[in-house]
Formats: sequence, C-alpha cells, structure tokens
Amino acid sequence: MLIVKKFGGTSVGNAEKIKNVAKRIEQDYRLGNDVIVVLSAMDQTTDELLSLAHEVNMTPPPREMDALLATGEQTSVALMCMALDALNVPAVSLNAFQVPMMSTANHLTARLHKIETERIEHELEARRVVCITGFQGLDKYGDITTIGRGGSDTTAVAVAAAMHADTCEIYTDVDGVYTADPRIVPDARKLQEITYDEMLELASIGAQVLHNRSVELAKKYGVTLVVRDSKSTAEGTYVREVTKVESMLASGVAADKNTVCITIKNVPDAIGSEYRVFDLLSSNSIAVDAILHNMSDNGKIDISILVSKDCAPRAEALLNDNLERIKAEKVIVDEHVAKVSIVGAGIQSSPGVAVKMFEALFNSNIKIKMTYTSEIRITVLIDEIDMENAVRAIHAALI
Amino acid sequence: MLIVKKFGGTSVGNAEKIKNVAKRIEQDYRLGNDVIVVLSAMDQTTDELLSLAHEVNMTPPPREMDALLATGEQTSVALMCMALDALNVPAVSLNAFQVPMMSTANHLTARLHKIETERIEHELEARRVVCITGFQGLDKYGDITTIGRGGSDTTAVAVAAAMHADTCEIYTDVDGVYTADPRIVPDARKLQEITYDEMLELASIGAQVLHNRSVELAKKYGVTLVVRDSKSTAEGTYVREVTKVESMLASGVAADKNTVCITIKNVPDAIGSEYRVFDLLSSNSIAVDAILHNMSDNGKIDISILVSKDCAPRAEALLNDNLERIKAEKVIVDEHVAKVSIVGAGIQSSPGVAVKMFEALFNSNIKIKMTYTSEIRITVLIDEIDMENAVRAIHAALI
Repeated sequence: MLIVKKFGGTSVGNAEKIKNVAKRIEQDYRLGNDVIVVLSAMDQTTDELLSLAHEVNMTPPPREMDALLATGEQTSVALMCMALDALNVPAVSLNAFQVPMMSTANHLTARLHKIETERIEHELEARRVVCITGFQGLDKYGDITTIGRGGSDTTAVAVAAAMHADTCEIYTDVDGVYTADPRIVPDARKLQEITYDEMLELASIGAQVLHNRSVELAKKYGVTLVVRDSKSTAEGTYVREVTKVESMLASGVAADKNTVCITIKNVPDAIGSEYRVFDLLSSNSIAVDAILHNMSDNGKIDISILVSKDCAPRAEALLNDNLERIKAEKVIVDEHVAKVSIVGAGIQSSPGVAVKMFEALFNSNIKIKMTYTSEIRITVLIDEIDMENAVRAIHAALI
Repeated sequence: MLIVKKFGGTSVGNAEKIKNVAKRIEQDYRLGNDVIVVLSAMDQTTDELLSLAHEVNMTPPPREMDALLATGEQTSVALMCMALDALNVPAVSLNAFQVPMMSTANHLTARLHKIETERIEHELEARRVVCITGFQGLDKYGDITTIGRGGSDTTAVAVAAAMHADTCEIYTDVDGVYTADPRIVPDARKLQEITYDEMLELASIGAQVLHNRSVELAKKYGVTLVVRDSKSTAEGTYVREVTKVESMLASGVAADKNTVCITIKNVPDAIGSEYRVFDLLSSNSIAVDAILHNMSDNGKIDISILVSKDCAPRAEALLNDNLERIKAEKVIVDEHVAKVSIVGAGIQSSPGVAVKMFEALFNSNIKIKMTYTSEIRITVLIDEIDMENAVRAIHAALI
C-alpha cells in the first residue's frame, strides 16, 4: 500500500508529539507500506513568524512572507525525519523546491498545479519514508509560494493524487466525521464513510474537519480520504464515492454561528437589482454565502445575504456607502443568527426529510428566518440562541 | 560600486536590529550602489534549532540537520527584505537553492564550489537589493547543505568573488582589526589596512574577527575585505594585498588561551617518531597547532604538541592508549599555557623584531616555554597568568 499521512500543527507541536507521530509512521512502514508524510508547521510557529514579520513591516511583501512562512514546514519535516531516524526508520525530508511541487505565482494564495513524482518515487524505492512540507509550492520563477488556508490538507491530497496513493489519511484532533457535533448532541455517532459532496456541504457549514479545497481536489482525482485522530488508533471516517447505498437518508447535522445576515431594504423589483449588489460585493472580495429575496408586493424587494462574521463590517460599510448605486433605501444587519443544516445524499429523492426537519423545529418552538437548499443539503437560518436545541431536535428526528 | 555586506547573527538578533541594518543598507542603495547582503541566522535561532533537534534525536542525521538549520538564514533574509520594503527599498531574498549556490555534498561541512550569478545579476539590474542566505549551499542531489564554522563570512566572500564585487564588508561587534586586544592594551590602535597573510596569522592565534576560511578565499580571489562595526559608521580595517609599504614592521599582537601543551616523553631519536605521533592524531581528526621537539642527548627526544582545549582530553587519552605504538615513555599535559604572537609582513626581513620581543618579555620577567615562527609571525608559549602582561610589554616595545 502507498499511504499518504498528513499531520497538522497541533499534532507536531513539540518534540514529544513529533516522537509520537514518528512511532505511528513507523508502524505503517514496518508493515511494508510505502509511506509519504505531509506536515504543517509546528503549532505557534506560523503565528510567531507572522508577528515577527509585522514587527519589521506592517504590510510585508507577499513574496517575502511566503519565504518566511515556508521555514515552518521545513522545520517540521526535518525534525520528523530525525525522530524517524531515532527509530531506525530511514527517512528523507523534501521541501517544495526539492520535489518540486510547482504552483502558480500568486503569493500567499498560490494553487498547486504540478507535482513531479520522480524524486519521491526514487526515495520510496529506496525504502525511505518521505516527509514533504505542506502548504508550500514553487513557482516558475523559482520563488517559494504558500497556498493559503487549508494548505497542508490540499498538499496531502495533491501528493496522493500525483502518486496514485491508496489512501490519504488526514489526522486531526477528532477521530472522524460525526452525525453532529458531539459537544451538542451527546449521542451523535461517527460515520464510517461519507461522500465527497456530503463532506463538502458539511465543511461549508462549519464542520471544519477538512478544508473544502482539499475535498474538492480529492473528489476531482478520486483520492480516498480518511479522517483520523492523531491521538488514537480508532478507524476514522472514509471520504469517497460511496458505492453501497447507506440506509440513512441524512448523514449529519451541522451548525455554524460564523454568519451575519444583512438585509438590503427596498431595492427595485427589476432586472439588475441582485446583480448590482453581487457585483459590488464580489469586486471587493467579499464572499456571499447565500442570497435570498422576498416576493414583491409594491414594486420593491428586500435582498438578504449571508456573509461570514469577519467580512460583515466591511460588507455593511460598503453597502451603506453605495446605497445610491444599488438603489436601496437602507441596510439592516442581524448578527445573532446561526445556520443549521442537514446533509445527506438521500435528501434530494426524499421530500420527507424537509418535512421532518421543519416539524422538529416547530415542536421545539424554533422560528425559521430563512431556508435554502442544495441537492444534498437543507439549511435553515435561525436565532443564534436556538442553535444547539435545533441541532439536537433535528438529529433526534432524522438520524 | 557593487558592495557585498555581511551581517552576523547578533546584528540581526531582533526586529529592532534588523530595521537598523536595513537603514544602513538603504544608505548605500540610495547612493546608487548595487548592494548584495549576506545574513546569518538571528542570534539564538541556531541554538534553539539544535536543542529542538537533540530533543528528538541525540545524533540527528546530518542531511536533516542541514535542512533544519537552513531555516535560520531563510528567516533572516525574508525579514530583512520586509524591513527594506518598509523603507521603500526594493529587495529580494534568495536561498541557496534559488541562487543557486552549489556546494559539495558533505553535510554540515560542505564547501561552496560554484555560485551562479545570473539571477543575482538580473535582480541587481532591476535595482533590487539582493539578500542571500549565508552558511548554506545546495549539493548536486538538490539537497540543502551547510558549510560549517565561519560559514556566512565564507558565503559573503564567495559571492563577492563570483560577482567581482568592489568590496566585501564584514560587519561584526568591533570596528576593525586592532594592533592588540583593546581590553588588554588600552592604547592599541585600529589598523587602517592589513594583508591577507597577516589577517590569517592573527585569526589563527585567537583574534577571531574573521574566520580563516573566508580570508583564505578572499586572498585566493583577490576580494577586498573590510571589517566594520555594525553599530557605528567608523571606517573599519581593509584586508587586501597592501601595495604601499607601511612604516610599521609589526601589525599586531595577538594572544590565545585556547591551547594545551602535551609533551610526549622519551621517544626514540629516530626517523619516524614524529610521523607516528602525527599519524595517530590526524587519523583521529585531532588538529595539531604546532609540533616541536628538543635536541637529543641520550638517543631519546621529547615531542611537544599544541592542541585546542576541546581536543586536549581526547588527544591525551589517545596518546596514553598508544604509548607502545608511538614508542613513548609517558605523556605530560600542561593546560595553563597561552600563546602570544607578533604578526607583521616586515618580520621576515627584520631580525630585530624577535630580539625586541624577547627583550620585552625578559624585562617583564616572563618565562618562554616554547617559540615557533612563520614568515610573518613569531609566537611564544608562556604561562597563562603571564599572558596579558606579555601582550602589553610586546605591544609597547614594538607597535
């Protein structure tokens, strides 16, 4: 088997943790597997480097930021190889430039586009564990790039795809994907497997076990992902195109407080109204999670959008500054909202799921402010204080 | 002018110091010069990385040690470019692999053998300051190497040689090379210039302003070195093939306590005696500073060697374990000795220098245990407690 194992910053946060991860890698290696390890920077390291950078320059040039941040993963992989050597496991660290792992040239947000496999193959053939720096790439100018949020997960999937690995194990601080957050729903159960699309829907609504970008890449190249706990040997959850049809309609309930509802009041009920709002926001790099508008009864409509909490103040200011351009009367902001979603491949073919969800919320006396759906997801917007009750009620009714 | 400026770890030890160095670089840049900067790792960084490495493996594999240590200089150069950017000075950081700066493949002690100049030239033509990582190289396998002690000085000289720089400024915590250690001789004066050979002799006897390896390289390629203070704008000392004959016979007095005298008693006064001792020590990587033997009067001689303090216990044990092989009776160790030397290009042609030196020591009631010379140096071995008096007496008599 060729296994790619990715460990995040908390899993390699100090010497002791690195040694523990090394023992885990050793087990797979001793069983005769080829093992590629992708690592993030040690916990804290990236923050320390960022603050050092800001001490010398409040707006550091992105090229140098990338050169600086890349030292974090370089440190992790070198230390991991030393820890493996201490266990008599031959290992070799590779930076992005040594693979090389080619990326686009947009610093801080580069995208990987080609991973050369020759050196990796050569090292595996020599029966070495290959430890690769996550999060970084090399652009065509020979400059170091970083690939932005969720970077190391994405690196792991990209390496697994390029090498046709049997599985890509992503180690986190939970032992798998659950039907709901166990802190909210004590009897939530761990899923044995889940499809890429379900995982994407769950991730986009706050169950941040895996970064969406890595799941999208895994889906594109058919890489089997496994979400596992770095502190236990529990089986974990497989993310793949599930072949058997599970008996459940719904895979999980997810909740997300990181959202703000902004309502733009009284824009003309005419062609172009939504376009003007969307254009304004996207040209200012504000991502909108959902757009809804009510039905018109007086030639005017209200448009509601959901944006993340960190974008909300900027979005609000921007809309207020452009009331004339978007032909709106005013802007209303509701910060105390939460999204609760049910996700499952069977939802599309079973209208009963939506009914049961609304019934559960009704029985719990929870008011729905907004509803929107995808093929495998139903999301309701509710008051923030109702969130946990809503998750419990929906989980009890449907899972 | 094309100027190479090298700053050591203490000069870039924190954000404030990095900003100060950046201002210094800015001045040269604004005057229209092409500026290449070579940096060491920030003070403490290397020690921190070493201790982290030893936490996971007491004998870390050298290849991974190099990969780990190289992050130190990568951090320095990225931060320096950010600090320069804050001053609106365009700058670009280059790691060894980006230059590339090719080296041999022996990890921890690699030697630079080829520096590609294309990328550096391109960046300078675009009027950017180029900040290059000191201390590291890239071997033919694409692996990161480090070049051992005095590394960043050597990198700076190698870059200056490859780029045919006008000067190579080495910034340290002293403002030049003095005729003696100012802490010992208050009226020691700063030399305006000194030859490569004189500098080499001074360095080898403890005036560690520049590492010998970098001076040798500068001599080989005719690179003009300037030793300057990173905290002041004082002129510094030029190290080059001096064309004008200075009026002085002697350039400086240097002293060194880091030495132990080991005497091997009663070996046969026959061909091969010295060879056997030297062979034993060098095959165990013990560097010997000087070998002397007394005249025979009974068919036996005593051989005395000087070794550095850290090598001494190993050398002593080794000699004692091999008394039979080296045909010696016993080994005597004297740890409380010091070397005091006078260095100057004019010494060879002026026998008067030696006379004055011995006279000064005699007048100060200092016993000479041993004397040895090179073309431009006279060294005496004396008791450690006499060292400072000896330096003062010789300095007063000759400089």
